[in-house]
Formats: sequence, structure tokens, C-alpha cells
Amino acid sequence: MLLHLSTWPEVETYLSHSQGIILPIGSTEQHGPTGLIGTDAICAERIAHGVGEVTQALVAPTINVGMALHHTAFPGSMSLRPSTLILVIRDYITSLAKAGFTQFFFINGHGGNMATLKAAFAETYAILADLNLPNADRVQCRLANWFMCHSVYTLAKQLYGNQEGSHATPSEVALTQYAYPDAIKQAPLSPEVASGHPIYGAIDFRRNYPDGRMGSNPALATPEHGQQLYEAAVKELANQYLGFVGRSEG
Amino acid sequence: MLLHLSTWPEVETYLSHSQGIILPIGSTEQHGPTGLIGTDAICAERIAHGVGEVTQALVAPTINVGMALHHTAFPGSMSLRPSTLILVIRDYITSLAKAGFTQFFFINGHGGNMATLKAAFAETYAILADLNLPNADRVQCRLANWFMCHSVYTLAKQLYGNQEGSHATPSEVALTQYAYPDAIKQAPLSPEVASGHPIYGAIDFRRNYPDGRMGSNPALATPEHGQQLYEAAVKELANQYLGFVGRSEG
Amino acid sequence: MLLHLSTWPEVETYLSHSQGIILPIGSTEQHGPTGLIGTDAICAERIAHGVGEVTQALVAPTINVGMALHHTAFPGSMSLRPSTLILVIRDYITSLAKAGFTQFFFINGHGGNMATLKAAFAETYAILADLNLPNADRVQCRLANWFMCHSVYTLAKQLYGNQEGSHATPSEVALTQYAYPDAIKQAPLSPEVASGHPIYGAIDFRRNYPDGRMGSNPALATPEHGQQLYEAAVKELANQYLGFVGRSEG
Amino acid sequence: MLLHLSTWPEVETYLSHSQGIILPIGSTEQHGPTGLIGTDAICAERIAHGVGEVTQALVAPTINVGMALHHTAFPGSMSLRPSTLILVIRDYITSLAKAGFTQFFFINGHGGNMATLKAAFAETYAILADLNLPNADRVQCRLANWFMCHSVYTLAKQLYGNQEGSHATPSEVALTQYAYPDAIKQAPLSPEVASGHPIYGAIDFRRNYPDGRMGSNPALATPEHGQQLYEAAVKELANQYLGFVGRSEG
Amino acid sequence: MLLHLSTWPEVETYLSHSQGIILPIGSTEQHGPTGLIGTDAICAERIAHGVGEVTQALVAPTINVGMALHHTAFPGSMSLRPSTLILVIRDYITSLAKAGFTQFFFINGHGGNMATLKAAFAETYAILADLNLPNADRVQCRLANWFMCHSVYTLAKQLYGNQEGSHATPSEVALTQYAYPDAIKQAPLSPEVASGHPIYGAIDFRRNYPDGRMGSNPALATPEHGQQLYEAAVKELANQYLGFVGRSEG
Amino acid sequence: MLLHLSTWPEVETYLSHSQGIILPIGSTEQHGPTGLIGTDAICAERIAHGVGEVTQALVAPTINVGMALHHTAFPGSMSLRPSTLILVIRDYITSLAKAGFTQFFFINGHGGNMATLKAAFAETYAILADLNLPNADRVQCRLANWFMCHSVYTLAKQLYGNQEGSHATPSEVALTQYAYPDAIKQAPLSPEVASGHPIYGAIDFRRNYPDGRMGSNPALATPEHGQQLYEAAVKELANQYLGFVGRSEG
Repeated sequence: MLLHLSTWPEVETYLSHSQGIILPIGSTEQHGPTGLIGTDAICAERIAHGVGEVTQALVAPTINVGMALHHTAFPGSMSLRPSTLILVIRDYITSLAKAGFTQFFFINGHGGNMATLKAAFAETYAILADLNLPNADRVQCRLANWFMCHSVYTLAKQLYGNQEGSHATPSEVALTQYAYPDAIKQAPLSPEVASGHPIYGAIDFRRNYPDGRMGSNPALATPEHGQQLYEAAVKELANQYLGFVGRSEG
Repeated sequence: MLLHLSTWPEVETYLSHSQGIILPIGSTEQHGPTGLIGTDAICAERIAHGVGEVTQALVAPTINVGMALHHTAFPGSMSLRPSTLILVIRDYITSLAKAGFTQFFFINGHGGNMATLKAAFAETYAILADLNLPNADRVQCRLANWFMCHSVYTLAKQLYGNQEGSHATPSEVALTQYAYPDAIKQAPLSPEVASGHPIYGAIDFRRNYPDGRMGSNPALATPEHGQQLYEAAVKELANQYLGFVGRSEG
Repeated sequence: MLLHLSTWPEVETYLSHSQGIILPIGSTEQHGPTGLIGTDAICAERIAHGVGEVTQALVAPTINVGMALHHTAFPGSMSLRPSTLILVIRDYITSLAKAGFTQFFFINGHGGNMATLKAAFAETYAILADLNLPNADRVQCRLANWFMCHSVYTLAKQLYGNQEGSHATPSEVALTQYAYPDAIKQAPLSPEVASGHPIYGAIDFRRNYPDGRMGSNPALATPEHGQQLYEAAVKELANQYLGFVGRSEG
Repeated sequence: MLLHLSTWPEVETYLSHSQGIILPIGSTEQHGPTGLIGTDAICAERIAHGVGEVTQALVAPTINVGMALHHTAFPGSMSLRPSTLILVIRDYITSLAKAGFTQFFFINGHGGNMATLKAAFAETYAILADLNLPNADRVQCRLANWFMCHSVYTLAKQLYGNQEGSHATPSEVALTQYAYPDAIKQAPLSPEVASGHPIYGAIDFRRNYPDGRMGSNPALATPEHGQQLYEAAVKELANQYLGFVGRSEG
Repeated sequence: MLLHLSTWPEVETYLSHSQGIILPIGSTEQHGPTGLIGTDAICAERIAHGVGEVTQALVAPTINVGMALHHTAFPGSMSLRPSTLILVIRDYITSLAKAGFTQFFFINGHGGNMATLKAAFAETYAILADLNLPNADRVQCRLANWFMCHSVYTLAKQLYGNQEGSHATPSEVALTQYAYPDAIKQAPLSPEVASGHPIYGAIDFRRNYPDGRMGSNPALATPEHGQQLYEAAVKELANQYLGFVGRSEG
Repeated sequence: MLLHLSTWPEVETYLSHSQGIILPIGSTEQHGPTGLIGTDAICAERIAHGVGEVTQALVAPTINVGMALHHTAFPGSMSLRPSTLILVIRDYITSLAKAGFTQFFFINGHGGNMATLKAAFAETYAILADLNLPNADRVQCRLANWFMCHSVYTLAKQLYGNQEGSHATPSEVALTQYAYPDAIKQAPLSPEVASGHPIYGAIDFRRNYPDGRMGSNPALATPEHGQQLYEAAVKELANQYLGFVGRSEG
């Protein structure tokens, strides 16, 4: 059930039996010479919609731009500052908590969002407590990174071994190929790919990772892999969600 | 050309001949008993994609949640605070201006966003000037509200007369029916509908507009109307965009 | 009744029969070669005092500096950032709402303030709701732009036709001449005057409007016109105020 | 020379021989049963205008609302939060420093503004340095409290002895009587007046100072005293200003 | 009783008989060629611990970095912006007030912190009131500058006369020598030392005070003086604290 | 070399051969019935001082209060909001980067700080880039959590097995016993200890972890263990630091 395709009376009905909601969050950032700039948002959104279907959970609109400051030396990358993203999360949760939602399940497609999201959750719990909302102390946020699902991780390693890398990975590219088969890109990829450099600022990042990839070989990706990864992620995260909202063990 | 479905080298190429970009912005808020909560985002996104196709312009990902504080007493409505939305716009434009974009064409689906967007543009011009970016004084933002297009307005009045109203209007509902024919909702609509109350806070709004509509009769909407409205908006905004970026008079 | 010339027991008495207050807001910005930098504040303040006299309403001190970032490439112009002005409005309204005021009637002298004021009102309603003030949901803000009064607009068109322009207009200059007859300035004005350029950042603005005027011929202004405009504005806004606070239809 | 009554070319001329500006700042807060709510703004503004005349210095518009949170339990009192006032000062100085002003002489009418103004000056110096303005390291702010002038202090003690007190003082009330002889208020004043309590929050303040006075007997004030105090303050602050801008020793 | 060396049940017990707490705040900034960068934090911390022992009061951890923006052109100096320090103080007091503390006694080692601390107190009282904490209107903050104690001031004048100066003073250096006898530094000190310049921005400060001292001769300091000054400060501030929390007249 | 016990000329000399600095960060929060509230700050500070001695690196003053909002339902706990801590880190790094430091090695004693620190690093890189500092793109921050050192983790597991738990652990308590043998606390500890609950807001945390421990048995701690853990952490982090600043592989 997608919030965007629902009416407010339908949400009112939903709230009478569930206070959980799924929030996809991605990023808009370079993903190497062949990866889509929307990769992280596409993956998070597709998987969130899949989990919503399996669990009958409500799915909020996708946060398309996340925390990707270190990618902003590549054109087309967009980023919120962490301090902005904290306020965005605060506003999202506050709006929904006032209506009665208490369980916020973020399906995340971008490693760079994780720290800021955790900081935002802590900030928001404190703010909600200050508002004296009746359910403030029952609000719970969960961060679910699809790419860190055990089944996904295992499958990626099996398909790509150490060519999976850590950015512009074949697994995320595969998932976007499954989602958008008409937008599969071709470009020459050097056999050598940078890896192992810590992440600091944007200029430094591009200096170290000149084509944007981090140790990955996205040429290995196929739409069929994408489907497999999608199905693994949906299954595992659906279970996590059900555990989170108390309908079974997560 | 959708930014989300592009690669960074493709954006680099695009920037060599155009510095314009289209940014759809909507809202996630109640639209009466039958209107979709995502109405404003859906309309802005669909029209922006259409304008992007006609003009070969790059289209950024949609801002799905806008300034809808006055709707938040209805469940499912979400809102950024104006001060948050200003920071979001600042971050979006700053990210893109650093890469070389200078012309930002916001296609907006929600009247409640207009004031904050204008404030955000002013704030951002000043911030960019402080950064000493080489192109800071050439950055231009344009606010294009699809529902205020002359052709759209004329068509809506012709189709619906004074039953168009000002929120949860048949014209915007029609456009979502065209976009999502499987999500057309039915619910009883009282023949009397509130109208004419000024907008203040959320509690007051719901008190004055108990079912969420503002003077509108969305039961008049049809997908066919939606297509007509869509085509009128795309045509008019494509011309505006081309004028804005200097490829013809807007 | 001017707040600045009242005592707190007088305000306490006032609150026992009215919860309305008038807040003049102007700007401190260039108004072309002959217009006073304080034009917008002077007009707003004078008209607000006049409305206060007619309606027996309390008038708060004038906000002299508003949102005029686009004028700041001309010396003497001052501006708050929109994000600052939002906080100022929040603080003004919060201070007064805690004392029992609920109806805030802003008499505005500057078009550039409008967007930020509307954003500030929305932000403030939400903040007041969070404070659990007993009267939070009855707080109402109204934006009344004197230069957009029907009677003022009609008179200005009749007096100046299309030489009224949109900044450093003869009508606002006339009103300051009426208010400060000793500060009428003379300077050569080119017969050609820039007009029609959209407003972006400060550098761009001065490039497009090199002497600061926007399509106007302030040489047409006279103190007598100023008096007529003043009287029209006071009459129309006094009616609006009385309607707003429920003492007659506005 | 009042900024509000000047044109931008006049300011441009002024800047060619002086980079100093006077900024009056007051407060809008209770001043006991007979003191005007605008006392601090009135005093600061009048004295600033006098100093401007004597020194030919430019005078900016008055900041009418300052930091008076501790007075806000009395109706009619208004306050900015310190964090807001810091931003206001930042915006004022930044606007003017970009135009070439470097010496900011704040004539202050309210003790409660002092700490925040000093904090704001420090914050602003750092912000200006970050902007790489050519004159950033020459910007200087001076806080000049009229009520702390040696000549004023001496005269007040001579006129009122220990009935001067520290808020709603006869000296500041006298100055407003001189400025606004038509707004002299009468109200019974208890012979006992609270004094000596430290200042904490607003509720606590009103508990300790039930009629708003702090150890003062404003019934002693006369317009004639007001004129004497005004003249002493103008003379002393004019000298301070001239010393500050380097035209003589301050 | 040091908070850092206590357990939460011990604090719970403490709160049953006292709601007072001592908070040392210093600075991390240049103190001339021989003064320790931590001078202000060391002095505040040592004296606070001494006062805590004498009065059995709880002592919070030291705020080591304060408002020292004007010193930051000397390497090793660190500063919070005033706006940041206000938030830090807000967070400290809010955390502790929610647990039941109401009396906050700040022992301060740095003149540059004073204005921001006072602003922070005012801001925090207002924020606490908005939270509807049961004890919000009983929260009291006191600023106690050890170097302004009458006994300290007298002793310093007696020991050093006009060579005490106002920064990198022999008295504060002496106190650090007493605290850290192994960290007594030697360096040539010019007999002439700058003094009398007002404090503006960091670049200006270093231009005026090239070795960092302000009119002082820290070569006069001895650890024995340090002990005397320490004992005077502890005695006087212990009395102040007891008066503040109502256990005797302060 | 401790920054607090250095002079600015000593720091100037240090900068001529190293641009690295160690910044200890802890927390002030409940650590169960027997753990010190300052445990995390004590551990971070002691280890940082040890690493500084081994590596000859400069050590900044300790950040004593971190992000511990979830502990604030226990008296004595203090916390910054994440948004505040981000500003604190921004101010620390900006102060030091302007003086020439480029490598910031944070030795952290509290898991709850990790997310906010990472967010703060990203925010700060972007801010420094905006300031056009010459070395902005060479600034690097590293987060080093002593409790996650491989040698520490191994030793803790060996000493305590699954009684190590995750908060108020015997290993951190042991380290504080080694640091402050006079502050070893005794209190009854229930044999059952809560564990496995996710962390949300403060009220929820205390409900789930009524005595503050998370799965730990701090009664197993001894000062001798503390010394072993200290030495392991210092050795491992010294190597990490040297690798970080390029003096050997980290």
C-alpha cells in the first residue's frame, strides 16, 4: 500500500490496525561510468515497494537525495548536508507520529546515509519527547540497509567475489538493470579500479577514485542477477519488518 | 533525460551544451476523500518528465514532501517545515551549481510550496554569492506552477466551472487518474463543500474543511480530462523552459 | 494606540476586549536615485498608525529591515536572510501569543517580504501548536500589502499609468513625500528605465536595473498624491482589519 | 543623516569619506506601571539621531525589539531569542560591510541586549572573515550604552539618588517624557519597590518584581530632566563616536 | 563530589537533598609566549573541584573549549562560535534540569565566555519554559568568574600592580603553575607589551597583540602565588555557591 | 604533548613538522550501578594521553559530553543533541584547520558518538571546502574507537566472555579502576541483566534496562585488567595513528 496512492481515509483505516510505515531512502550520486545516478534511490524504492506488498505495510514516498557530499565532485551528484537530512527526518517522523504512527522502518540504499540517519533518529526521539505527544516514548526507528541483508551479501559474493567492491557494485547495478532494463548503460571500464582509500571530502574522493567506482566491476551485472538480489532482499526485509512491528520474530 | 537514469559522464556531456535542469516538487498531503495523498508530487513529476522529453532537458528527482503543515491534522499528510525546505533547496542548488548548472526550473504541484520556494531562492542566491563560485551571479531559479498555466486554468474552468475549487480539485485528481488509472478512488462526497476560509494552522484547517476539500468537486474528474490537462501543461511549460534557458522566448 | 507609547497595564486592559494587533513591516533598501532607502518602512509605519487610529487597534513597533537581498548590491540596502526573518516573526508572534494575542495583522510595505512572511506564518503556527499554548489553534496571521489595496492600485494607475512601474514607484515615493516633506530628493532620472527582468541575485539585479528603478518614473510623485494614497490605504486596510478581528466584514 | 531618509547615491557619497554608521537598538518591554513599553527603543533612537546630527554620521533604522525574554510575563513585552538576535546582527553588519562600512557604533538602550550583542559581534567577525571580504579584518563593532555614560550616570544619581533603581528608572522615563510629552502616564506606584533579585526566567522575574519596576521610582521623572539627560548622552556619545572612527580621541 | 567519578544512584541520592551543581568552563586559547593554552580551563577546573570539596557540591565535567574566536589567529587556539556555545549550554542544562537539577553555578575562567554564557542562560530559561517541565520556572543559572572575585582581584593587584594586565596575566599563569608545576614554561618576554586595544576579530587581535599578551607580565608568576590565588578563589566562590543554593548568604 | 599544557609558540613549532592531532571524545552518562558516569571520557582521555606519549602527537582537550540522549532518563547523564555535536566538531576542526592542522584522529570512548561523529566529519569537509582554505581538500578525520580495537576486543572476550555485554562493560569499568583506583564503587548487581533490546528514546531505554547495564557484569572488572586493556589500546591506536599521519602503515 503506497502512501502516495492512498487517500487520507484509507490511512485512517490503516492506522486502526497498524502503526508501522516503511520509508525508502536512497541517494542521487555518481555510480561510476555505467551506474545510474539514481541507483541507491531506485534500489531502495523498488525493494520497499516489494516489502510493502508482501507485508501489507504502508510505504511512504522515497527520499531521493541523501547524504552524498563525498560524491559531489562528480557532476549530477546531489547531496543534503547531514544537518539538513536530520531536519528532514525529524519533520517526516514528527508529521507521521502526530497522526499515530510509531514504527518507522527505513529501507536504505546508500551506506553514506547510515550515520546521519542514526543521528537523526536520536535527535528525533528527544524532540518528540519534548512535544509531550502521548505516544512519544513508543516511537521506534529501524535502519534496514538492503545491501547488508545476509542473503544479499551472500549472493553478491557468490556472483561477483571480490569484484563486488563497495561502490557502483555489480549487485546494485544489477538491481537497477532489473528495475529499468531500458536504461542499461555501456561504457569502457578500466580493468584496474581504485580501492581501499578512506573517504574524506569530495575533492579527495575524486582524486582517489577517478572514475567513481570503489573496487567494483559493474560490467558483471545482469538483469537476471538483479531479480535474484531483489527477491532475496524483499524476502529478508519483509521478515525483518514483521518482526519489527511485532507480527512475527524479525 | 532523467538524472536518476543517467550516468555522471552523461551529465558531464549534457553540461557542455546546457546548464539548465528541471526540478519537480510536489507534496504528500490529504486531497479529500478520493484524492491521492501523492497528488501534487504525481502531477509535478509526470509533467516534469513530459517537459523533459519535449525539451531534451535534464530532470532531477522529485521532491515528494513539501510544505503542507496546514494539512497535517489529516492522517498520512507529511510536511517539511519552511525552514527545513529552505535548507533542502539550498543543498540541491548548491550541489548542482558547483557542477556547473545555473538555471533551475522548478515544476511545482502545490500552492503551499510557493512562498517557501521563493524565500529559498533568495536565500540561496546570497549563499552562493558568499561561496565565491565563478558562476554564482548567473544562477537563476524559476518557479513554474503547472496549475497556474494559462491553458490549464482555462481548461479547468471550462471543464468544471466553479466546482474546480482550490484544493483536491477535479483537475489535479484527473491528472492523477490519467497517471495511475488503477488507483482511481470512490468515496461518498457531500454536495456541500467548505470554501472561502483563510488558511492558518492545521487544527484550524481541519475544523474549517472537515473532509479536506476546499470548494471542489473531484467527482467530476476523468482520466481523459487528465490527459488533456497533462498535454496542455507540458506544452506550455516546455515553452516556458525553453524561454528560460534562452533557446526561444518563454 | 501604539504599543511603544503604552504601558503594560494598558496592554492588559486592551487584551480584555481585543486580541488583535497590527504589525508594520517594511524594508531598508535602495529606491532608485530619488527614493528614500526607508520608503517601504515609512509607508508601512505611517499607514499602520493611521489604521490603528481609525480602528482603535494596538500597533506594534515597525520591522524596519526585511527581506531585500536582491537590492544589496546598492549601498545602504540592508536585508535579513529569509531564514532569519522567519525566526524574527516566530519570536514576535510567540511573545505576543503567550500574552493572549491571537490575531496578527501585518501591514507590509515591500513585495520582497511577502514570500518569507507567508513561510514564517506557516512555521509559527506549527511551533505554537508544539508549545501547547491554550490558544495556539486560534492564532491567525494576515498579510496586508498596502500597495495591493484595490483603491491604491486604481489610484496609482490613474495618476501614473504605466509609469508606475514596480519598484521605486511614484506612488510609494509620493507617500514618503507626504510623510517627510523635508526629505524630498531631486536627481536626474534617465527617461529610459529598465523593466521586465526577473529578479535573481543582487549582482544580477544591479546589472539589469543599474539605477535601481524597475520601470517607474518617480519624478511624477507629489506630496498631494501621497496624501490621497495614504487615505485610500488607511480606509481600505481599516476595513480589512475590522473584518479580520470580527468586528465587521472585511 | 538618517539612512531611512537618504538615497543610495547619497550613501555612496557618504562612503567615500566615512565608513562609520550608528545603529540604535532598544527593546519593547514593560517598564513598570507608568513607563512606556518602547522606552528603550525611544531613548536609543532619539539619542542616536542626536549623535548623528552632531557628528554628521549616518544613522541606521532602529532595532525596536531586542533581548527581553525575562520581561515576557508582562503583556506587551516582545523579545527576540538571543540566537535570533545574533542572526539579525549578523545580517545587518554583513549587508553593510559588503557595501564598504567597517565601523559599527551601536547605541543601546537596554541592559538585556548587552551580552547578546557582544556575542553577536564575535560571531560576525568570524563569519565576515570566512566570506573573504577585502575589508573583513577591519570591521569593528562598538557597544555604547547611553545609560552607562559617565555624565548620564552622574546626573541620574544627582537627580534621583538611590531611587534611580535599575529598571523603569526615572532617568529613562524622563527621557521618554522629553521625547513624547503627550505620552506621559500616571498610575499609582507603591512606595515599596522590589530590588536586588537576580534575573532568571520570565515567570520568576514577574514573581519577584510584581509591578515590573526594579528598585526605581519613576514618579520623579520630568521632561526637563529628560532633556538634560538627552543632552549629556548626546554629547558624550558623539565624542565616543568621533574617537571610534578616528576623527578625535574617544 | 565529581560527576565523572560518581554513579547514577549516587547522583539520585544527591538530588534528594540538593538540586545544585557546579559547572567549570574554560577556554583553549593562546596565553602569550609562556602561558599554557589550557590556562582558563585549568583554572576553572581546579577551583571548581576545590569549591566542590568545600561545599559538598556536585561538579560537572569541564567545558574545555569556550568562546575564543579573537584568539584563533594564534596556533593551538580553539573556539566554539557563540551560537554553538549557546546550544551546548542549552543541552547541558536541559539534560540536568530534566533530572531535577535547578541551580547551575558556572565557574568561569575566561572573560570571553561571559557574554555568550549570559545569552545562553536567557535562551535556556525560555526553552525550558516551553518544555513544560515542572521545575522550569525554578531553574537558576549563576555566572561566577574566579578572576573577578574581590579577594582574587585584590591579591593580584597587590602582587603584580599594573603588570597584571588583562590576558595571560601573572595571576592566571601562577595558578596553572600551582596546578601543573611540571609545565612551567620559559620564553623571552619583551619588556614592552601591547595594551589598550579594543577586541575585534582574530586577525586584528594578533596585529595589535603580536605575542598574545594584553598588558601583562606573566614572568612575575610563581606557584606560591598560584596557591594563594587558588585558596582565595575557592573560599570566596564556596561562599557564593552556598548563598546561591540557599544554605547561607552568598 | 598535551595542547592544554603547551604554549602557542610550541604549537607553531609542532606544526612545522606534523599536522596531526589527537582528539579524545567521551560521554557523561550512566554506566550502571557501579560504573562511573565519566567512564567513556575517562577511558578516551587516558588512552589518548598514552597514545600521544608514544607517538609524540599533540592531544587536544577531551570532549567530555557526547551524544547520550538515550541515557538521559538516568540522573547525572548529560548529552548534546546530535545537531549540537555536529556544530561542536565543525568548530573544533575549523579552528585547528585554519592554523594548519589537517589530520584529526578522534579517540572515542562511546559507541553512541559514532554516528554523529561520522555525520560531523562529512559536514565539516563540505564547510571547509566552502571556506576556500588552502588545505581544505587535505583535511582528514579518523574515528578510532578504543573498545573496537582488535586486541582490546580479544582481551575482553578472553577475560569476561559473554559477560562483557555492551554497556557498563567490565572492560571499560576496569580501565576506569586502573585510572582512578580511589573511585572503585560497590553496589549490588542483580545476576540477571537485560540485553538485546534495540535502543530508541530515553524513557524506552530505562524501561528496558532498569539498572542501566546492557548485558554486562562489571563486577568482574579489576584494576589489573584495566591496565592490560589500557596497554593494548594504546599500542594498537598508536600504530593506527602513525599509519594515519603517514609515519608507518596503520
